[in-house]
Amino acid sequence: MFIQIEPQSDVPIYEQVTRQIIEGIARGEMKPGDTLPSVRALAADLGVNMHTVNKSYHELEAKGIIVIRPKSGAIISSTEERALTPDQLRQIEKNLKPVVAEGMVLGATVEQIEHMMKKVFADLQIPAEGV
Amino acid sequence: MFIQIEPQSDVPIYEQVTRQIIEGIARGEMKPGDTLPSVRALAADLGVNMHTVNKSYHELEAKGIIVIRPKSGAIISSTEERALTPDQLRQIEKNLKPVVAEGMVLGATVEQIEHMMKKVFADLQIPAEGV
Repeated sequence: MFIQIEPQSDVPIYEQVTRQIIEGIARGEMKPGDTLPSVRALAADLGVNMHTVNKSYHELEAKGIIVIRPKSGAIISSTEERALTPDQLRQIEKNLKPVVAEGMVLGATVEQIEHMMKKVFADLQIPAEGV
Repeated sequence: MFIQIEPQSDVPIYEQVTRQIIEGIARGEMKPGDTLPSVRALAADLGVNMHTVNKSYHELEAKGIIVIRPKSGAIISSTEERALTPDQLRQIEKNLKPVVAEGMVLGATVEQIEHMMKKVFADLQIPAEGV
């Protein structure tokens, strides 16, 4: 998976790493059971501090997207392990709030936001789900 | 408008200020033409650094949500001034991407995300638009 850091971005680097891993999984570039690179290897690869990658992996674990095992490393959870909990639904809703609010204030209608949301979903869609 | 800072949050403080101002405008608590508190006053009120509030106001200006005038301060743009530009549409789409990707990876369907998005929109809806 290709992760590109934008040093000038307002988004903290660990959050850029988290988002790009999530998008990579959404696109099917990595699958449940796959192991992420070690913290050391990914940090060296991206030219960032190990602490940054570590923070990202712990965020992914807190979101229920990976499981960190002392010996085997960071493993992508299976879809069953990732079944939506009420907490995760609330988390998605919480994530949506600032984005939707900004869209509204800029003058977007609910239909425009819906259209963009569906486009983003389709663009990310896992190509061969379940294969 | 009531702004509440969560010091423990992973969201940087200036970004918390930005989001809450945007949500306040979305909810109609502040209207086009209204003036935001001065940087100094809001910083004192929230107990944060003036630099933090300044960064937030400049972010709001970059998004086209307020206009900063040297003498009159930070004024909320009129809806006409806030007509959606192609750049702003792209910005909303870009904002949606990590949220939708996370929802997908957690196992949400496009219908579930659509439902939550509409709920967030309805909850934020300006009570008496145009009045």
